[in-house]
Amino acid sequence: MRKVKVGVLGATGMVGQRFMQLLAGHPWFEVTELAASERSAGKPYEEAVGDRWKIGGEIPDFARGKIVKECKPGLDCDLVFSALDSSVAGLIEEELAMAGYPVCSNSRNHRMDPDVPLLVPEINHDHLEAIKGQKLGDGFIVTNPNCSTIGLVIPLKPLLDSFGLKRVFVTTMQALSGAGFKGFDLDIQDNVLPYIGGEEEKMEMEPLKILGRFEKGRFLDAGLGISAQCNRVNVQNGHLETVNVELGSKAGLDDVISSLKGFNPLEGFGLPSAPNPPIIVKEEDDRPQPKYDRDAGEGISELARGMAVTVGRVRECRILDYKFVLLSHNTIRGAAGASILNAELMLKKGMI
Amino acid sequence: MRKVKVGVLGATGMVGQRFMQLLAGHPWFEVTELAASERSAGKPYEEAVGDRWKIGGEIPDFARGKIVKECKPGLDCDLVFSALDSSVAGLIEEELAMAGYPVCSNSRNHRMDPDVPLLVPEINHDHLEAIKGQKLGDGFIVTNPNCSTIGLVIPLKPLLDSFGLKRVFVTTMQALSGAGFKGFDLDIQDNVLPYIGGEEEKMEMEPLKILGRFEKGRFLDAGLGISAQCNRVNVQNGHLETVNVELGSKAGLDDVISSLKGFNPLEGFGLPSAPNPPIIVKEEDDRPQPKYDRDAGEGISELARGMAVTVGRVRECRILDYKFVLLSHNTIRGAAGASILNAELMLKKGMI
Amino acid sequence: MRKVKVGVLGATGMVGQRFMQLLAGHPWFEVTELAASERSAGKPYEEAVGDRWKIGGEIPDFARGKIVKECKPGLDCDLVFSALDSSVAGLIEEELAMAGYPVCSNSRNHRMDPDVPLLVPEINHDHLEAIKGQKLGDGFIVTNPNCSTIGLVIPLKPLLDSFGLKRVFVTTMQALSGAGFKGFDLDIQDNVLPYIGGEEEKMEMEPLKILGRFEKGRFLDAGLGISAQCNRVNVQNGHLETVNVELGSKAGLDDVISSLKGFNPLEGFGLPSAPNPPIIVKEEDDRPQPKYDRDAGEGISELARGMAVTVGRVRECRILDYKFVLLSHNTIRGAAGASILNAELMLKKGMI
Amino acid sequence: MRKVKVGVLGATGMVGQRFMQLLAGHPWFEVTELAASERSAGKPYEEAVGDRWKIGGEIPDFARGKIVKECKPGLDCDLVFSALDSSVAGLIEEELAMAGYPVCSNSRNHRMDPDVPLLVPEINHDHLEAIKGQKLGDGFIVTNPNCSTIGLVIPLKPLLDSFGLKRVFVTTMQALSGAGFKGFDLDIQDNVLPYIGGEEEKMEMEPLKILGRFEKGRFLDAGLGISAQCNRVNVQNGHLETVNVELGSKAGLDDVISSLKGFNPLEGFGLPSAPNPPIIVKEEDDRPQPKYDRDAGEGISELARGMAVTVGRVRECRILDYKFVLLSHNTIRGAAGASILNAELMLKKGMI
Repeated sequence: MRKVKVGVLGATGMVGQRFMQLLAGHPWFEVTELAASERSAGKPYEEAVGDRWKIGGEIPDFARGKIVKECKPGLDCDLVFSALDSSVAGLIEEELAMAGYPVCSNSRNHRMDPDVPLLVPEINHDHLEAIKGQKLGDGFIVTNPNCSTIGLVIPLKPLLDSFGLKRVFVTTMQALSGAGFKGFDLDIQDNVLPYIGGEEEKMEMEPLKILGRFEKGRFLDAGLGISAQCNRVNVQNGHLETVNVELGSKAGLDDVISSLKGFNPLEGFGLPSAPNPPIIVKEEDDRPQPKYDRDAGEGISELARGMAVTVGRVRECRILDYKFVLLSHNTIRGAAGASILNAELMLKKGMI
Repeated sequence: MRKVKVGVLGATGMVGQRFMQLLAGHPWFEVTELAASERSAGKPYEEAVGDRWKIGGEIPDFARGKIVKECKPGLDCDLVFSALDSSVAGLIEEELAMAGYPVCSNSRNHRMDPDVPLLVPEINHDHLEAIKGQKLGDGFIVTNPNCSTIGLVIPLKPLLDSFGLKRVFVTTMQALSGAGFKGFDLDIQDNVLPYIGGEEEKMEMEPLKILGRFEKGRFLDAGLGISAQCNRVNVQNGHLETVNVELGSKAGLDDVISSLKGFNPLEGFGLPSAPNPPIIVKEEDDRPQPKYDRDAGEGISELARGMAVTVGRVRECRILDYKFVLLSHNTIRGAAGASILNAELMLKKGMI
Repeated sequence: MRKVKVGVLGATGMVGQRFMQLLAGHPWFEVTELAASERSAGKPYEEAVGDRWKIGGEIPDFARGKIVKECKPGLDCDLVFSALDSSVAGLIEEELAMAGYPVCSNSRNHRMDPDVPLLVPEINHDHLEAIKGQKLGDGFIVTNPNCSTIGLVIPLKPLLDSFGLKRVFVTTMQALSGAGFKGFDLDIQDNVLPYIGGEEEKMEMEPLKILGRFEKGRFLDAGLGISAQCNRVNVQNGHLETVNVELGSKAGLDDVISSLKGFNPLEGFGLPSAPNPPIIVKEEDDRPQPKYDRDAGEGISELARGMAVTVGRVRECRILDYKFVLLSHNTIRGAAGASILNAELMLKKGMI
Repeated sequence: MRKVKVGVLGATGMVGQRFMQLLAGHPWFEVTELAASERSAGKPYEEAVGDRWKIGGEIPDFARGKIVKECKPGLDCDLVFSALDSSVAGLIEEELAMAGYPVCSNSRNHRMDPDVPLLVPEINHDHLEAIKGQKLGDGFIVTNPNCSTIGLVIPLKPLLDSFGLKRVFVTTMQALSGAGFKGFDLDIQDNVLPYIGGEEEKMEMEPLKILGRFEKGRFLDAGLGISAQCNRVNVQNGHLETVNVELGSKAGLDDVISSLKGFNPLEGFGLPSAPNPPIIVKEEDDRPQPKYDRDAGEGISELARGMAVTVGRVRECRILDYKFVLLSHNTIRGAAGASILNAELMLKKGMI
């Protein structure tokens, strides 16, 4: 099988770097184009990144000497991944779709558009239907959720399917890497920052679209209420979230746990980045912990690492029905890995 | 005015050290006795503490050379503060009360006893009536709440009084110092621990007693539901909590904020450790933060420092009525300072 | 006295921000111009800084709405401070000097130039003579040392004067803020980075110039050898350094300590940012510590805060003569504060 | 081969826990006895440890239910490992040796005794001769060095053998786990502690014995001078040290590196905990780092993990000959693992 040629937009930023790392040696994709801002364009990737390689490990060999291009049509690839900053992502992604490229975007700009899927392969691949409504020429745009949303919606999905869901309270303790370069804050030492601009709004809206239906050409929100409080803590990678849920119907604790453990809609799809199972339920009182559980995930390849959501402390809630803690890796499952899994699904479905 | 002679039980532990620090130079109290376990008894305090002075600053001069005694009747003082570990506090506190001492305890053992006040001077000083029911000879026991409870109940009180309260969700991000010596965990680096043994139970029960009434010789729980999730984060001092509340009646955001800001029931009491006001409401999006707000509190003396609760991000909740973030200093307002404020109130009321 | 009008080049970066903070309310200087890169030029300072205000506190009111200009001649001021990145500082500083401005630079570009003073007011103000040799029109350039150098040379100066100095070994444990935005590294958690590019070379060369003489139109290096090893540790502010010194002549421990304590060459100069004394000697075994000593420094104004060097653990060395530990604030004494003190000295001397 | 029965003294402390972890599944040793203080004696190990299991992972199954005994003769084992606190280790170890047990001690008490080997198998196994001079009945005591010493002496040994060694300057940045429970200090956040009681003295004396000779019944110190400065940094595990060395004869940089890389005196001995090679030389500018290199070490079993010393940044020194950075795991190579490797060597030599 010939590999599919892919380009990465915003290749020099922190999410772009993670794309490089995950796509190095990907069995289905070959990175043929790296693109970034005018300042980087024309330079070899290694020089454009300079001392800003921040995700551990080394720059993959395939990328080092490759010349960075501008984020414009004319790239030699069959698909682009977008790790662009939201200040520029909107127009660039549209322009590339208009030029015929499928765009798998991690940026927030088009997530809530009425014709753009906010795709989580385990949850809503029927939402890909929405692409037909896009007026973007031969190309199209597919997005993945915010890093704090995705960890939440994955365990909510089996609960919604099995028992219904009415209300969800969530408080996040988010890692530093989610903030990118510009969000870096030295003040995080001996501290917690109880505010992340725009994050709570995303967490309260995105799940309604993801968990909702696409019917007759439009998205119908899932009928549940979400209230989020978002905090930054002194952790490098891995968003931890405490969740309280009110179910639609009564369910025993064992049923709830079985529902989480049994969720595995991508089993048998053969997607390299799909974790099997997508939800890992821990029994220990004191798990999940960012340090030990952020890299959880096993599948048919190493790419599933960091793609599972770990759930722990599932127990009754004095007020609603149940409460639990969840953890997911914010720059793998919550960013680059999510886009790649989306692309794998679309390739499998013959859309690319 | 002659100072009241006080003793400190468990004087060598982390909370005991904080008592030493706060009582040094206290205008009303003079520490005449230090008591601790058999191992420490008979040694000068400085030697008994050894290299375990962990709260910053120096051992106060008055305490350095003072010989540590055992925690038994016979101490030359008018009142004892108890910073004992809960494994031994229960019986020792009873024994001292039986011997005629008023006991102001920070330990959890007697907090929920049907004849022991769980006292927060700003909230429930009528609960001191309960002492009459104690069968402990000439002495008595008064307790203060758990470090994570006290930050929560203080802002809940004006909301309860003004609007009624139905349901409260709280997620804590607690500092390391609350764990004492034995709770120290190196694994907190680059990590969050999503479990603190027994903490959620305390947070769900203690507020019901504190915010309830004492009538006809018994405590009546406040009629509200609380659901807590407790986490340890990599912060030295200061517990941060995210809170969602459902009020008993509808109220505008301004009214809620006014209610918090206007709460000041100890104004004019002249208690050295009382913060004025007890609740500080911040307007900035990104406050309170442990690093900058844990020492908040102004009053008639320096002792009010670290005694205020800082509230921020008061805003509407998509599901319940309001949500906000609060912060309080866990070893000052949440431990030693709370006991001392209790004793100040009792002295003012002529009970000592 | 009318205040001197000053401009700040590179005003939006981390050192530039520290200039804003220190110059707000300065008794002698008034900031009339802020300048930065093309990208920032034309925007109000607050907008140009965006979410990159990283030094704590708020943007000073005087600066918020002020329009940022480009770093070119035409600025309405009597003096410029340069906080420019070394990739651009060299030419811009020359251009401004040629246009008649005195330039007080924190950048490394011109530090080792044969006609540019590498000025530390406590040590070498006779080096200002070198300016006469500058071929820069009516303006001139004066520099201050690297952040890790300045903490070292201040205590070396009295030792050199009193006893002579032959060899110095130094190992640094440097704070994160010294790395600026781009040097930010999430990998510092639970880690030490044993390398800072170019730092050891600066520490081994700059002190020779600073401690040397300016005679007959040229700089003569101080005749001592320095070997440096530089590390980045997980501390927000404050560079800690361990030092071993071989003196030129034998000296008792008391003499060494007296020499350090007695050093105060700027006493009576009345410079607002000058610490009095510049070296604080601690007696405790476990000091200085970054957390507690980085803000040390008292003088005739608040500006002296963070300007003193704290020395501790002065003791005999088994191999050379003495060893000790020192600490200085890397973005105050080690950057913006150093430039400002230089400017104060020059104003006092009538050079501005 | 029947496994050798071993006991662990001080089994509940932090070093004791590491012994449990490393001895679980050891191919040559079987832990038949756990011993600790009176307070723990009589309890199952899991209960005695309580919430003080601090080294990650789980208590090994073999140890959980085993009843802890007192540290007295009568233990059913062929060898004891001592992880006792130095306040009690001295007499207990003597008593056990007198009762016929070989004692492999990690405590400092007997390290400098004139008839006790301070053993590092790669360096000085001929020092085991000294045991003959011990007047301790049928048993004997063998010790391993302090956690900061061992990382230093291993790379010094090949330099000494190849080129001679005159003077060594070392500055340490030591991890928190070396401090044990009582050394825990919350003040390490955003801080460095420039003092560790007694540590510099150990680092300056122990290497002289280790690198020296045992001749005619007595130890002769190696003829070199060492000056140490010891600091505690905010790292969980792994001591980093900067070192400057003056060689006895001139040597090229390549020769120095070859000497370090070629050092492998235990090759072919077949010891399960021996790393092969014992010194790993990194070429990258910014290594070793505690986070990435502390677990270095490969051998014939998993036990070699954490047993190698990683050396990096070998380069010329402006004053002496060379400087470099080293890292070793303080509770594996620097404590429990060192004792176990000693015991393996002695078993191999037929001494047990």
